[in-house]
Amino acid sequence: MTYRTITIARDVQFAAKQTAAESRERFARQGTLVVNLLSSPGSGKTSLLQATARHWQGRHTMAVLVGDIATDRDAQRLTPLVPAVQLTTGGACHLDLALVQRGWEALAVADVEFLFVENVGNLVCPASHDLGEHLRVIVLSVPEGDDKPAKYPKAFRTSQALVINKTDLLPYVPFSLQQATEDARLIQPQLEMFPVAALHDEGIEAWCAYLERQRERLREAV
Amino acid sequence: MTYRTITIARDVQFAAKQTAAESRERFARQGTLVVNLLSSPGSGKTSLLQATARHWQGRHTMAVLVGDIATDRDAQRLTPLVPAVQLTTGGACHLDLALVQRGWEALAVADVEFLFVENVGNLVCPASHDLGEHLRVIVLSVPEGDDKPAKYPKAFRTSQALVINKTDLLPYVPFSLQQATEDARLIQPQLEMFPVAALHDEGIEAWCAYLERQRERLREAV
Repeated sequence: MTYRTITIARDVQFAAKQTAAESRERFARQGTLVVNLLSSPGSGKTSLLQATARHWQGRHTMAVLVGDIATDRDAQRLTPLVPAVQLTTGGACHLDLALVQRGWEALAVADVEFLFVENVGNLVCPASHDLGEHLRVIVLSVPEGDDKPAKYPKAFRTSQALVINKTDLLPYVPFSLQQATEDARLIQPQLEMFPVAALHDEGIEAWCAYLERQRERLREAV
Repeated sequence: MTYRTITIARDVQFAAKQTAAESRERFARQGTLVVNLLSSPGSGKTSLLQATARHWQGRHTMAVLVGDIATDRDAQRLTPLVPAVQLTTGGACHLDLALVQRGWEALAVADVEFLFVENVGNLVCPASHDLGEHLRVIVLSVPEGDDKPAKYPKAFRTSQALVINKTDLLPYVPFSLQQATEDARLIQPQLEMFPVAALHDEGIEAWCAYLERQRERLREAV
């Protein structure tokens, strides 16, 4: 009897990469920019999306797939403004592409210009999973402290933009915008920065203009 | 040729549980209360430990094992006050018992009354790992929002105490102490609550008195 070793891990990873690339391509062809939002719990991803929806109302279309371990509270906050589906992982620390695909089918919207995937609040695990997004954006809130880029490097290294939220709290907590920016750009020199106070609709115009530009570039590239 | 199925997973889990129980027992016999601190990134675990060290200075002894994905910034903040060793996971989303044991050896302190293990900032993965602690404490900061107990239930369900930090920010953000408390106690009715503002040394006396009582109970039980 002879034995052969079959390396499964490589095939599985290759298949996952290909599926993500295909999903990315499909959304690009239909003109939908897919944005994967990463952050700690409570940094304000849902508030940022609410402010984004208010800013675009009547001008641009968006939908949200929102991931959580338990509860559908975030989807409840979003559905008065935009189509949203809650993805509940039941314990898992990050979203995966299969969940995103099921969520997209459940959304059942014919076409949207922007599809946001609000990941589980976690600065570690989601950084290792490609959801077929065109843009990965990290949200860091001021009260979390300016040392987060250095302490959670992978999430920052794999992102294209950084939203610094809750800037209205700058007078009350120790946080240096300069320190956070320098640390983040040491890790990812091309990182675009957007200071905002989502609850107060501050800084949202620049953030939305950036997303609009990214979608234009996507459409030109197809 | 005949085949037998050997269930490895169960043995490994059993061995891990036994090792954690043995570690817990060993620390109890030497009079050291081991406290595992869980929270989101930036909720103020290190600041809480700095305030605790200031409060106990000259009266009680403590040491800290501090976990992070990268950097030794938290250990640098603590070592002027107490013995501290940084445990860098190099990407892993939680601490494990083997790292804690190596950290304890590296600390090389003869005896301390309180050993704090400051886990990686993550409300998901650390909840599933027993580090041989006597007490699991979750730190939730006010700007993270009062919806976190319902959204991250396992971390709250497996903890004995909840420290609500940054209460000085209550006037500036939407956060209901009552809502957070009710939600947390739905999940874990025995959860003890300690509102604090660690940066301003507020609420620290009650928190420290609780830890002192827990250590007394541990010594009586040995």
